[in-house]
Amino acid sequence: MTDAVTVITAKRDGQRLSDHDIGWLFQAYAKGEVADEQMSALLMAIYFQGLDPGELRTWTAAMIASGDRLDLSSITRPTVDKHSTGGVGDKVSLILAPLVAACGAAVPQLSGRGLGHTGGTLDKLESIPGFRTALTPAQTLDVLAETGCVICAAGSGLAPADRRLYALRDVTGTVESIPLIASSIMSKKIAEGTSALVLDVKVGTGAFMKNHREAGQLARTMVALGEEHGVRTRALLTRMDVPLGRMVGNAVEVEESIAALQGYGPADLMEVTLALAVQMLTLAGIDADPAAAITDGRALTAYRDMVRAQGGDPDAALPRAAHIRTALPAPADGWLTRLDALAVGTAAWRLGAGRARKEDPVSAAAGVICLAKPGDRVRAGQPLLELRADDETRFGPALAALDGAIEVGQQPPSPVPLVIEEIGPA
Amino acid sequence: MTDAVTVITAKRDGQRLSDHDIGWLFQAYAKGEVADEQMSALLMAIYFQGLDPGELRTWTAAMIASGDRLDLSSITRPTVDKHSTGGVGDKVSLILAPLVAACGAAVPQLSGRGLGHTGGTLDKLESIPGFRTALTPAQTLDVLAETGCVICAAGSGLAPADRRLYALRDVTGTVESIPLIASSIMSKKIAEGTSALVLDVKVGTGAFMKNHREAGQLARTMVALGEEHGVRTRALLTRMDVPLGRMVGNAVEVEESIAALQGYGPADLMEVTLALAVQMLTLAGIDADPAAAITDGRALTAYRDMVRAQGGDPDAALPRAAHIRTALPAPADGWLTRLDALAVGTAAWRLGAGRARKEDPVSAAAGVICLAKPGDRVRAGQPLLELRADDETRFGPALAALDGAIEVGQQPPSPVPLVIEEIGPA
Repeated sequence: MTDAVTVITAKRDGQRLSDHDIGWLFQAYAKGEVADEQMSALLMAIYFQGLDPGELRTWTAAMIASGDRLDLSSITRPTVDKHSTGGVGDKVSLILAPLVAACGAAVPQLSGRGLGHTGGTLDKLESIPGFRTALTPAQTLDVLAETGCVICAAGSGLAPADRRLYALRDVTGTVESIPLIASSIMSKKIAEGTSALVLDVKVGTGAFMKNHREAGQLARTMVALGEEHGVRTRALLTRMDVPLGRMVGNAVEVEESIAALQGYGPADLMEVTLALAVQMLTLAGIDADPAAAITDGRALTAYRDMVRAQGGDPDAALPRAAHIRTALPAPADGWLTRLDALAVGTAAWRLGAGRARKEDPVSAAAGVICLAKPGDRVRAGQPLLELRADDETRFGPALAALDGAIEVGQQPPSPVPLVIEEIGPA
Repeated sequence: MTDAVTVITAKRDGQRLSDHDIGWLFQAYAKGEVADEQMSALLMAIYFQGLDPGELRTWTAAMIASGDRLDLSSITRPTVDKHSTGGVGDKVSLILAPLVAACGAAVPQLSGRGLGHTGGTLDKLESIPGFRTALTPAQTLDVLAETGCVICAAGSGLAPADRRLYALRDVTGTVESIPLIASSIMSKKIAEGTSALVLDVKVGTGAFMKNHREAGQLARTMVALGEEHGVRTRALLTRMDVPLGRMVGNAVEVEESIAALQGYGPADLMEVTLALAVQMLTLAGIDADPAAAITDGRALTAYRDMVRAQGGDPDAALPRAAHIRTALPAPADGWLTRLDALAVGTAAWRLGAGRARKEDPVSAAAGVICLAKPGDRVRAGQPLLELRADDETRFGPALAALDGAIEVGQQPPSPVPLVIEEIGPA
């Protein structure tokens, strides 16, 4: 017999929550016997006091148990998925899912929408005419069995407790907590039913985690959670100080993804995509060279099959913005040494590519095109960005976000590897 | 321009809230633009990060500004009130208000109800047949002008923000925060309009504050808040390890208060009451000996006048319990060395004298009578307590609370002064 105040004050005072406490809490919350104001106070107490590995395992299991678990047992190929903690220009999923499918794995990618300055995979795919991201579990399995990959919305039946908790965290200043982030991501991925999972934990100005130490802690926490729940899990820490690729938005990122699948992907985008593909194939037990699946066109075919299977027309023209203008002229001749991911992501968001609240619509055509990337030679006056919007009034706020976003130096910047660290089970 | 998440995360991260932030917060909360789940997350962040003196002053001012302030300018006598942080057997207000009134001050005592193991002054007075604690502001002023004292409920117009915050703190594990306790108490007392205030901050097993250091911090915080808002404020730290007096309950505490006003008060009760009376009279600028006002009957007369003015009959018989039984036989001959206030308070609560939730009724007749107090000589087998209840099923849970509540030793305990420290402005 327990009650909400006992559980809240125990955590507030640094005590451990028992399995019984946590189980009771989620059941009582589902029944409305624990109120949102009590849960938010507990979440803030967890922000300060944390959850130890045992508490976190039970907490995550309770979130999974709040809903259904997708049954992928009918899928004959090895299943493996990828999750990214979110970055600017991060269209990796659009390339990676068909690429890994083309190599023989099944990729059941249940994704989310963008919020704030990082885009959402579903928003990007929905810029393709006809593409449906809302699939029933049966449809999800059909697309996966037919094409080897599927990218759709996580249905409301998967980890519904996470949905409620996330909405609450979003308005109560309790998003930035490693155990809460880890349990939110992993409860959905475990409920999705994949056998293996690779996490792309981004670090840098454009990422949720600003420093290596915290990102590593989040990655290790999630790897441990996945393994404890029987999902083979690995993580890569990757840099997110600069937008990935040249395109930031929805339709423009689909265009860049198709170019990448055709073999024309920018180096930084391909570096991250191929590193993740190698991890996924290793976990799936498949000995294949993912670069070859691009060269011989199999990855592009898998992408086109998936788009068609989800109702989209891979040959249809993508939406184009009504208004385009160049911006950020280089202040001097030299080399572009910095292009801040957060500033560019915020500009794209303000142009209409992102949303401030989860119920807001997004513009398919809005976005930012990086006309130069760090390391490129630039001439004074040369515009470094192109901005696109459906509505001209968007340009002013977007330009304001770009203040201080670039630096031009007299020496080329040293190249930095994007993959910082690979993290497996402890 | 601010928003709830910005305010919550600023406090969470240890930043100061500006006057503008706090003003905005209370206005937005009153309008429903800040939700309870956001306020509770902020309260938990304040539990961890505190409020500095400037923030606390603004926070308290915002709570006062959320409602009306009682106008006592028509009262010609100097006004002075007392507030206790709550103890077991703490019937001091019932004696002190008429006592100080009999010495020439006006005591506008707006009180609360009991919650948990400490009783409430209003609950005690309501055991007097006819006594009304719900008075309009005009009635409050009339009783005060006529009899020199009034003890009634703080109306809903005084510091309504505190009422909402307190209800929220009660269910979200955020009661035990010194700035939140201090602002809650002081916003009501300042809104009540008194010119001077003496605080009885209790320390010990039966008190809210278990140690001297925390109690001192709370007292200094409240004294500073009062002075900043123009109320002359002093505090006494007093011991609450043993019930005050011999009676714990509602009607039984009224009986003991009348006996005290007749000159038969137990020593510990009179020690605290007279020390507080001296402080109140000093703040009111009145040179009088409160003990004399008991001896010559003026204090009792003031009490009877107040009871009549509030609709009560001072001569009516008080409710008597249907079931009475003795308990806790002394385990040996010797001296009673310990009688735990928390245990006795919890037993009285379980017998029906207190409430678990604010909407619960209380029993007028239930309670505990201490047949011996620490320092008394006892014989093996002599019952140390008498329990009273309306319902026999209450005895079992009450006895369970009393497990380990007493100790009998072979030496009399050393007498300890009840007043630990006197605290004035820094």
